[in-house]
Amino acid sequence: MIINMEYGASEEQIAHIIAAVERAGYQPHTIRGTERTVVAAVGSGGNRIQLEGLQAAPGVEAVVAITQPFKLVSRQVRAKSSVVYVRGVPVGGDEFVVIAGPCSVESRDQLLATARSVKQAGARMLRGGAYKPRTSPYDFQGLGEEALRLLAEARDETGLPIVTEVMSTEDVGLISEYADLLQVGARNMQNFALLRALARVDRPILLKRGPSATVKEWLLAAEYLLAGGNQNVILCERGIRTFETDTRNTLDLAAIALAKELTYLPVIADPSHGTGRRSLIPALSSAALAVGADGLMVEVHPCPERALSDGPQSLDLAGFERLMSTLSRPARTLTPKEFSNSAA
Amino acid sequence: MIINMEYGASEEQIAHIIAAVERAGYQPHTIRGTERTVVAAVGSGGNRIQLEGLQAAPGVEAVVAITQPFKLVSRQVRAKSSVVYVRGVPVGGDEFVVIAGPCSVESRDQLLATARSVKQAGARMLRGGAYKPRTSPYDFQGLGEEALRLLAEARDETGLPIVTEVMSTEDVGLISEYADLLQVGARNMQNFALLRALARVDRPILLKRGPSATVKEWLLAAEYLLAGGNQNVILCERGIRTFETDTRNTLDLAAIALAKELTYLPVIADPSHGTGRRSLIPALSSAALAVGADGLMVEVHPCPERALSDGPQSLDLAGFERLMSTLSRPARTLTPKEFSNSAA
Amino acid sequence: MIINMEYGASEEQIAHIIAAVERAGYQPHTIRGTERTVVAAVGSGGNRIQLEGLQAAPGVEAVVAITQPFKLVSRQVRAKSSVVYVRGVPVGGDEFVVIAGPCSVESRDQLLATARSVKQAGARMLRGGAYKPRTSPYDFQGLGEEALRLLAEARDETGLPIVTEVMSTEDVGLISEYADLLQVGARNMQNFALLRALARVDRPILLKRGPSATVKEWLLAAEYLLAGGNQNVILCERGIRTFETDTRNTLDLAAIALAKELTYLPVIADPSHGTGRRSLIPALSSAALAVGADGLMVEVHPCPERALSDGPQSLDLAGFERLMSTLSRPARTLTPKEFSNSAA
Amino acid sequence: MIINMEYGASEEQIAHIIAAVERAGYQPHTIRGTERTVVAAVGSGGNRIQLEGLQAAPGVEAVVAITQPFKLVSRQVRAKSSVVYVRGVPVGGDEFVVIAGPCSVESRDQLLATARSVKQAGARMLRGGAYKPRTSPYDFQGLGEEALRLLAEARDETGLPIVTEVMSTEDVGLISEYADLLQVGARNMQNFALLRALARVDRPILLKRGPSATVKEWLLAAEYLLAGGNQNVILCERGIRTFETDTRNTLDLAAIALAKELTYLPVIADPSHGTGRRSLIPALSSAALAVGADGLMVEVHPCPERALSDGPQSLDLAGFERLMSTLSRPARTLTPKEFSNSAA
Repeated sequence: MIINMEYGASEEQIAHIIAAVERAGYQPHTIRGTERTVVAAVGSGGNRIQLEGLQAAPGVEAVVAITQPFKLVSRQVRAKSSVVYVRGVPVGGDEFVVIAGPCSVESRDQLLATARSVKQAGARMLRGGAYKPRTSPYDFQGLGEEALRLLAEARDETGLPIVTEVMSTEDVGLISEYADLLQVGARNMQNFALLRALARVDRPILLKRGPSATVKEWLLAAEYLLAGGNQNVILCERGIRTFETDTRNTLDLAAIALAKELTYLPVIADPSHGTGRRSLIPALSSAALAVGADGLMVEVHPCPERALSDGPQSLDLAGFERLMSTLSRPARTLTPKEFSNSAA
Repeated sequence: MIINMEYGASEEQIAHIIAAVERAGYQPHTIRGTERTVVAAVGSGGNRIQLEGLQAAPGVEAVVAITQPFKLVSRQVRAKSSVVYVRGVPVGGDEFVVIAGPCSVESRDQLLATARSVKQAGARMLRGGAYKPRTSPYDFQGLGEEALRLLAEARDETGLPIVTEVMSTEDVGLISEYADLLQVGARNMQNFALLRALARVDRPILLKRGPSATVKEWLLAAEYLLAGGNQNVILCERGIRTFETDTRNTLDLAAIALAKELTYLPVIADPSHGTGRRSLIPALSSAALAVGADGLMVEVHPCPERALSDGPQSLDLAGFERLMSTLSRPARTLTPKEFSNSAA
Repeated sequence: MIINMEYGASEEQIAHIIAAVERAGYQPHTIRGTERTVVAAVGSGGNRIQLEGLQAAPGVEAVVAITQPFKLVSRQVRAKSSVVYVRGVPVGGDEFVVIAGPCSVESRDQLLATARSVKQAGARMLRGGAYKPRTSPYDFQGLGEEALRLLAEARDETGLPIVTEVMSTEDVGLISEYADLLQVGARNMQNFALLRALARVDRPILLKRGPSATVKEWLLAAEYLLAGGNQNVILCERGIRTFETDTRNTLDLAAIALAKELTYLPVIADPSHGTGRRSLIPALSSAALAVGADGLMVEVHPCPERALSDGPQSLDLAGFERLMSTLSRPARTLTPKEFSNSAA
Repeated sequence: MIINMEYGASEEQIAHIIAAVERAGYQPHTIRGTERTVVAAVGSGGNRIQLEGLQAAPGVEAVVAITQPFKLVSRQVRAKSSVVYVRGVPVGGDEFVVIAGPCSVESRDQLLATARSVKQAGARMLRGGAYKPRTSPYDFQGLGEEALRLLAEARDETGLPIVTEVMSTEDVGLISEYADLLQVGARNMQNFALLRALARVDRPILLKRGPSATVKEWLLAAEYLLAGGNQNVILCERGIRTFETDTRNTLDLAAIALAKELTYLPVIADPSHGTGRRSLIPALSSAALAVGADGLMVEVHPCPERALSDGPQSLDLAGFERLMSTLSRPARTLTPKEFSNSAA
């Protein structure tokens, strides 16, 4: 930690900080510049919270941390990317894993038709909401346990592992009996009670980034899961909230590349919520693959205009098939020929 | 609802929408412009979700709602501002109510010293965190039930009603036994499971605006509480997340004025989280009073530099006293003399 | 400057940085922590840009500045707030100065009717756009020099100094002949060619904050004016762009309080652009007064619905009169009686 | 246009709007819903500004445009993507065009070394700043005309067309004599005086998106250029300003895909400013290619740590070579084999 004193801080204030650094269990190094004095706190066995508190002490301008706040999820502790297995499907390895399915489970027919079709097109897991977080209390809130049973039936038939969102600590037990991968939604990324409950569950977790969460806050949310005992965490970038309204969110693909620098955990992208516009999903899916994501989560519905939620951002069955065949084709490149020609 | 067709939408697509509007239980009115066709859906007994789903239909550019999505919290249903009583303290009436206390309850001494001092200075309620939402799992997480007991003791001594945050549905019962006003923190504004649980509790709720929530989403979160049976809701603006980093958040005082236009519920401001800087709190508190807020929530700690959380934004006891005396003094005005002079 | 080395930086990389700090004319202080090494550069005669460049050197995680980047506008160099006189009207002193007038000058009748009315109601300066920055090329672009002549006529009749926006270096000469206060619009806050031209003009400047500018960037834009020779600068907060769309911008009143901490220059508020909603202007004007602003700039039009620009955020003449009488009345306070009662 | 009346609007207010719509030259269609009345204005020959002004009329809640505000740049007027030739290099066709070079031209050696190297590696144009927009007046402001002469020399030697930024209308003439592609920087996207001057120049324009500009505002800025007579416009996404600070900006790749839906103009990406971190540039460059961009603009410097500007986001010469070879290699795909295996 670096404690940056205010311009004009008194000798007494500086002495107070030096003593406080020692009291907190660190070794103080004082650097007197021409305008400012800086006190560096060196050591690792001290009480970090006491140091941070000095931000509130008289004469202090800022306390600057020079180490990352997360530990267990950091590439510093584990250089090799981890692979998280979801009922046998590896996420974070060589394979680019596509998870597909309806926003909400609405009926047996809707779910099974979707499951069969996305399986056929190449999806590796089935998503479907049973408990839905909805901005308005008057919107469809999900079928609950009935949806879980239908998801299990779809898994039995297709072999696809199933992913569904957990909204409350109270539902953790029930949902864990059915689902293979438990999703923490964007609005719940900092629902710490939920994170603590999921840390104790024997299921992998899909942790979505909150719409106003920095990459570091997202990694700290994952740190809650690991610190509580659950190593099997997959991160999911789903767009952040910005001033741009022509897309529902702003899909932050640089955050995927940055997260993969900072952590060894797998990271996937959700271009459905990330854009909110069906027409943009294929382009952003290709971009997510190119930026280094480990997979995708995509909303698919047999009849998007009749979907009870998120229709405008859902692909229909044919649209998903086209997406998968696009992702399978050799992508556009800047070929050597192109630039040797141009260099000629 | 207005269904705005794409430029170049086919007659078949338009006919499909007209039929769908009828099927949803509305009366379609079609307006053919020079570039676009628009279909208006008139009526109130239809299935709104089916209409919204048409956003996903071929040839549709946008479905635009022309009524507000919230109902029970709207000034349309109740013109008169409501007063919410917290153990006898009225919020939303003539009085400007100041809630003060430490971010976290840390010890008996810390809490009682603060409670006595803020009571003396004019605070009307005592705040104090028992269960703390912390970005990092390694930060102080609160004393839990011990903190609740200390809060009750402070209430017994000072008579100040107590406010504390509920982070999880599991804690609702226990906290309701102690606290007079249950706070939903900013990160939990869209924790719908928690909102549903609090809707069934016989205690008033303080609902903080989420850091990336629009005013409408905030009112819809309040709608969950009212729709579930709890009429006693106080809103709290605590700053939104923007690109500006020299303040912790951007306190959106216009949102208070706007919320008071749209709803009859009381609205207070939290300048501590709203700015993150102790030096700015008095100015922003005066501004909140001037903009029409019904009260304030302010963090106060006997020794901010030793606070286990939020020290830099906490006032010390003398600072809070100064704040209260500032708020009590006649504020600066543009006096008639000022402008008659200038007009001379 | 503090150069924070990466975790795992090699001895060679650290030595390279130490040598580079010396080469840049600073004295290096090296602090070896348990995880990281930090090199502090001490002194003031060195080449700051060379230090900043080290961010790009191998093994460096971040270069952190510990002094403010602005100099001439800082309260460190001048503790006393400055008063800027605009044709005799003092901005930044005891008086709260209200500037009013139409967004655009549209006609002689419109301007004179407005000028007489706002003068009568207590405005101290007249605003009116002659050259308009418009998002679309098809919108009204202003009357140009004819508008300047009308503004001068209105000043002759009412005695109100006039304020108008300069959009281009080419117009600086002409506009300076007419206007008493030259406005740099929000979109041009970082139009450095324009700032450099205005630094050489013998007129005070009203510098609006850009919609995505931090407070520090705003002060650095003012620094361009002072460094170029113009000391007479008034800052104007007019709202920043955020995700909230129910207000046109988010008026950042904390930025006013913060700017007044960091600089001695006067700061005013523009609640018209800051909210974009006429109904919110009185409340936000009172809040701006309370937060410590030195004045207001408000849009007023005799018939807002026929305004060629910004009608929805313009007050009509009666509305402005009501605003001024509100600002002149003793504001609501938290009276000692209020809290002694409540304490009883 | 749709004029949405307030809940409770009076018959008189509705009649006033209907009359105003007719007066503006449109045909009014009135739709009376159960809660609200809506007046649609049909026709194309009327005065759109008068309609927009009705937002300020009593009883009106909102005036909603249902057509896009831009015209000449719209795909509605020209379905086929345009190709803009920059001294013979086609942008917007089959080729993915990479523009590379230093942020600022600093010296003959620096520029020529960079130009030769990026040419060799496959770049198709050379960038280099002569007039630099800098947040602080104390930062390096560019070599001016000397830089233009050096750029011309580099073009003579390598054959690469040259791109440089124009910051002021006064410089348009001089820079046009040297440069092949004139860049409008992000801070100047809404410098309308500059746009109008560039509309009359016989050179193609590279128009960067402003850090807080929506896609529509960006297209309207391009509309200024086309409406003024310059058809040769290339758009450049360079990141928007959001709350995330670990990247300098948030590169909005969905905006590229969306812009290509809405307009026929070519769109390129700037991952250097878009991320501000050298390590992220290769991944984001691949993603830009995949999302459908027509090219890239990348900062390259022989010795980034000694760069006078933007060192941390500049690739060195070897780094650029690696980038180009990455872009030339067949990209990672979801191969049919991958999913047939998984389906097995």
